[in-house]
Amino acid sequence: MRDSELNVQLLLTGNEIMSGDTVDSNSAMIAQRLGELAIGVYRKVTVGDDVPLLTQELTAMCASADLVIVNGGLGPTIDDLTAEILAAVAGVPLQEHPEAVAHLQQWCAKRNLHLNAANMKQAMLPAGAAIVDNPVGSAVGFELTVGTCRVICTPGVPGELRPMLDGIVADLAAKLQRPMERNILRLQTFGLGESTAQQIITDKIPDWPQAVELGFRAGAPQMEIKLSISNAAARDAQQRCRDQLQQLFGDHIIGEGDTTLAQRVLELLRERGATLTTAESCTGGLIASQLTRVPGSSEGFHAGFVTYSNAIKHSVLGVREDTLAEHGAVSEEVVREMALGALERASADYAIAVSGIAGPDGGSAEKPVGTVWIAWGDRDNIRARGLCWPVERTLFQTMIAAAGLDMIRRILLGVEEEPRYFGQRRIR
Amino acid sequence: MRDSELNVQLLLTGNEIMSGDTVDSNSAMIAQRLGELAIGVYRKVTVGDDVPLLTQELTAMCASADLVIVNGGLGPTIDDLTAEILAAVAGVPLQEHPEAVAHLQQWCAKRNLHLNAANMKQAMLPAGAAIVDNPVGSAVGFELTVGTCRVICTPGVPGELRPMLDGIVADLAAKLQRPMERNILRLQTFGLGESTAQQIITDKIPDWPQAVELGFRAGAPQMEIKLSISNAAARDAQQRCRDQLQQLFGDHIIGEGDTTLAQRVLELLRERGATLTTAESCTGGLIASQLTRVPGSSEGFHAGFVTYSNAIKHSVLGVREDTLAEHGAVSEEVVREMALGALERASADYAIAVSGIAGPDGGSAEKPVGTVWIAWGDRDNIRARGLCWPVERTLFQTMIAAAGLDMIRRILLGVEEEPRYFGQRRIR
Repeated sequence: MRDSELNVQLLLTGNEIMSGDTVDSNSAMIAQRLGELAIGVYRKVTVGDDVPLLTQELTAMCASADLVIVNGGLGPTIDDLTAEILAAVAGVPLQEHPEAVAHLQQWCAKRNLHLNAANMKQAMLPAGAAIVDNPVGSAVGFELTVGTCRVICTPGVPGELRPMLDGIVADLAAKLQRPMERNILRLQTFGLGESTAQQIITDKIPDWPQAVELGFRAGAPQMEIKLSISNAAARDAQQRCRDQLQQLFGDHIIGEGDTTLAQRVLELLRERGATLTTAESCTGGLIASQLTRVPGSSEGFHAGFVTYSNAIKHSVLGVREDTLAEHGAVSEEVVREMALGALERASADYAIAVSGIAGPDGGSAEKPVGTVWIAWGDRDNIRARGLCWPVERTLFQTMIAAAGLDMIRRILLGVEEEPRYFGQRRIR
Repeated sequence: MRDSELNVQLLLTGNEIMSGDTVDSNSAMIAQRLGELAIGVYRKVTVGDDVPLLTQELTAMCASADLVIVNGGLGPTIDDLTAEILAAVAGVPLQEHPEAVAHLQQWCAKRNLHLNAANMKQAMLPAGAAIVDNPVGSAVGFELTVGTCRVICTPGVPGELRPMLDGIVADLAAKLQRPMERNILRLQTFGLGESTAQQIITDKIPDWPQAVELGFRAGAPQMEIKLSISNAAARDAQQRCRDQLQQLFGDHIIGEGDTTLAQRVLELLRERGATLTTAESCTGGLIASQLTRVPGSSEGFHAGFVTYSNAIKHSVLGVREDTLAEHGAVSEEVVREMALGALERASADYAIAVSGIAGPDGGSAEKPVGTVWIAWGDRDNIRARGLCWPVERTLFQTMIAAAGLDMIRRILLGVEEEPRYFGQRRIR
């Protein structure tokens, strides 16, 4: 196989993937593992369990690719067609493969199962195929070279594919003499749009190095910035780009890798030996839930309050009935009293309080759906801000929960600057 | 377009899908929606943001398919190529589309955003293209017929694709003169395993009609049972199967369609004019959050308490310090007092209280990770049960939150029978 410009294609098969009953996560798993060797996937095709179509697709792939990974269709039932198709495309017969038979016998013996005819079908492989070990399941993988294209057939069960990929990737690394190095640096941001970030980078870093590929992945609530390099020589350039992004967007960068806002906040609380409490109306427990998903969160988070009704804001958090009557539940005054009430009842160092109109109902001309007040801070310094974020209910809850956590992150870091989204979303 | 044998192909684009950074769930969503019209997807191809390759694939698809749905590449950045590719394949220029401009203007105005040059790129569409409305995002969808093939281009953001598909499916149903009849009946269940359900159905309904295809989709926490028919004549058989499943698994069936446990609980509360409160330790606000995701949840849910530490269980919910010291936080006595404390403080009719060890740390020989106590009921009748559910932290939280909601659902329905998972998971 050639090295740098290896043409890799994936052929995925299974009626359950075509119908949408199953979401295909296998091809992402394969791509990520190949990515560790800086090998990209050029193209992938997914079809049902259909002999003529599978034959046509695999034939076309073998003519254009250096490596094809087929996933699925190795099982014992009649709709498992992969061995048959590969044999037809290679122009060889199916044969009982002694190693595959031995694997099946061991697999059944270990489980006190009788080796039946359906299982034995899994030992019928294209003549000349080599076995790829399956440490988990009954179906072995197998590979065969067709023309100049190496074809590797893998099982559709994710738990069987995963360990098999270890062997395949190690083998590829050895054949390509490529060390297994990670060459993607990911930065997690909140409050930056993809197009804004792109625009700012284009404007401010005109000499962006070609060796560092820039990518974005917009999620809710976080947006990921990716800096990919394809060889170790570009590592310094990658670090310089990271530093430049840090200067441009510093306070919007939460951390590297998979860091979430909740993780970062809990980390900062731990460093300071401090605790946080939450008083949630429109986010309804989402902030608390995101914090407590993180292992070890009990250190920095002891108590949260979901106060959905006015009566509960008063009885549980001590928000004054006058304040509610005068300003309404979605107001600066109410979130400030919610934050203070939560701080006191939880004996916590920091609080986030939110009250807003998540919709679809409950909006008015003065306070439309999407209006929200957030208060955050400690006993001596509670800040508050009104925003308007008019999006679908659950997205609204996700973004506001993130904004609340972001405010605490900023306070803990001593960042005084306001985030960009405050400018765009403020109501006064 | 021809009817029954419509050749439908999907073209998915995005470097983040090819790299495996993102798992593509959009194609499953599209396939499921087309499945409602008994339209199957013949073939799908996924490639990166690569002009020659995208052009080649789309050209080939237009020559063999009746309908191509393109997903992704509608955004504002330079790697969003779909409009450009479709224009090239159709042999028409890109033009500023007035409706797309109007959509962008409205979209920005509603959000107080400035319409920038990057955004305006999203209004440059192939000449002759018709707009497909995007009720959520800035990028409109669009469609164009190339030769005899209809090409519809849709956004890659799942939250934008979902509502757009409503319109596309309705339009297809009208064009194909196919009534929008649901021929898939979906039952949501909780606490039933896929293989258990399959085995029980095989044993108890030996004469299952061939015209009704049985399918399962295991999710966390719910498992969906699907009854698919391919023509209206089988509707009676489908209804009979539904009734038989209701008899077999009745109390484990939450509802039809996409019903979630939280939705069903809120519906039952509304019918009874009752309210629910939550006292959460190990689920950390997840139950409250799932309830408040549902529009209108404020009617049946006013207050929730996240009491993560012992001190807070005492100070906020009134759990006695003696009880905590004697039995530990994960105990029947503590969850009972949590439930009573929450009922009183929230003036609610029903309560769920949970306390457990979500892990990975905090387990002991006596109370290993996965141990949890759940209490549920009203002032006059609090029940409690200890379970052991030793799975990964966030899955544990998901399953326990669901179990709590399921208990309230059962009480509200007057189901006295215990669910199957109590037998499998009980600790005493």
